Amino acid sequence: MLAAPDLLLYLCTDRALALGRPITGAVEAAIAGGVTMVQLREKEASAGEFYRIAREVQAVTRRHHVPLVINDRLDIALAVGAEGLHIGQSDLPLPAARRLAGKTMFIGLSASTVEEALEAQAAGADYLGVGAVYPTGSKADAGEAVGIGRLREICAAVRIPVAAIGGVNAGNAAEVMKTGAAGIAVISGILSQPDIEEAARNLRRILDTGAREQEGR
Amino acid sequence: MLAAPDLLLYLCTDRALALGRPITGAVEAAIAGGVTMVQLREKEASAGEFYRIAREVQAVTRRHHVPLVINDRLDIALAVGAEGLHIGQSDLPLPAARRLAGKTMFIGLSASTVEEALEAQAAGADYLGVGAVYPTGSKADAGEAVGIGRLREICAAVRIPVAAIGGVNAGNAAEVMKTGAAGIAVISGILSQPDIEEAARNLRRILDTGAREQEGR
Repeated sequence: MLAAPDLLLYLCTDRALALGRPITGAVEAAIAGGVTMVQLREKEASAGEFYRIAREVQAVTRRHHVPLVINDRLDIALAVGAEGLHIGQSDLPLPAARRLAGKTMFIGLSASTVEEALEAQAAGADYLGVGAVYPTGSKADAGEAVGIGRLREICAAVRIPVAAIGGVNAGNAAEVMKTGAAGIAVISGILSQPDIEEAARNLRRILDTGAREQEGR
Repeated sequence: MLAAPDLLLYLCTDRALALGRPITGAVEAAIAGGVTMVQLREKEASAGEFYRIAREVQAVTRRHHVPLVINDRLDIALAVGAEGLHIGQSDLPLPAARRLAGKTMFIGLSASTVEEALEAQAAGADYLGVGAVYPTGSKADAGEAVGIGRLREICAAVRIPVAAIGGVNAGNAAEVMKTGAAGIAVISGILSQPDIEEAARNLRRILDTGAREQEGR
């Protein structure tokens, strides 16, 4: 298994939310602003299209030494040689994914309860995506909001790093970091902003402060 | 690479067309009637659900020594250890799929023109699914019908076996076999019939006669 990935500012892509801008340019700008990891999520694309987009985005992430994570499709993650795989509770079971992914790919799992989080950790997840922390429109299937209280419980319950996802933005990122989260996963808070690089840089500033405060405690 | 699979009577599943009957029982009945290969196609299911169904159906196909083929999701094919993968023109490119699948899994490709068929053969496809031969309601994305004439051209143009798919039934299977096809792929012609085993057996009889006539030529 790889070292734990840097979840501090984790960009999850959704082309529909990038205001019509090409995804490669959007990812490049987000990385310039300080994004530490990029997840490609393509629920509507065919596998061929997903593969093509993954290779294009990978040319950007590799150039900047930022890990690329593929959502759900382990075959595409393997085909492009992505650094990570992210799976949800209704995706391929983690043990099956781990057998295929081997030790060179890290695997993150979505969790929204302490129980799911502990189960994911026991099954060998390398990190957790916990959300939706706040109500959000980005993911139609995200269900009821987890809230800051339960996010804090989950962060306290597990040893693996947690990325807080769902409705996290510059206005609440500092509060989120106080829960012990290793970082935040952001879609529209970066992708839907008029200046992607500046939006990422602004979030990164808040997160760096939050991380320093975590270390200080 | 494995020996060429037996395409003679190739059942492609679509749970929506099984008239509400459980898919495992439907597959069991179809195999009892003479189906030589089974493809699982789950475009709507989550990966977790697809994996679960694949394992259930595999318990049936293994018991009867009938190869199981997974549509599109190579990760699920690898996770369950399926005998084959079927990919369409918009799925993962064949060379990428082959690299991951290795030599133990056969790979079939959908083709609807001589050009696509030759390209798939050159790329190393183990068999072709060619269609829709006749207009059909089973696959919404199947496009315009290929027709018997072009099916014959494709069968003559390639060395790898061809399964004719799309609107093939007991009324036209004999005509289809005269094109040189190695067999037929059937969804509703088996799954939507009141007696699945009898429908498969009836088709198999016609195909056995057609295959003998091909050998006689």
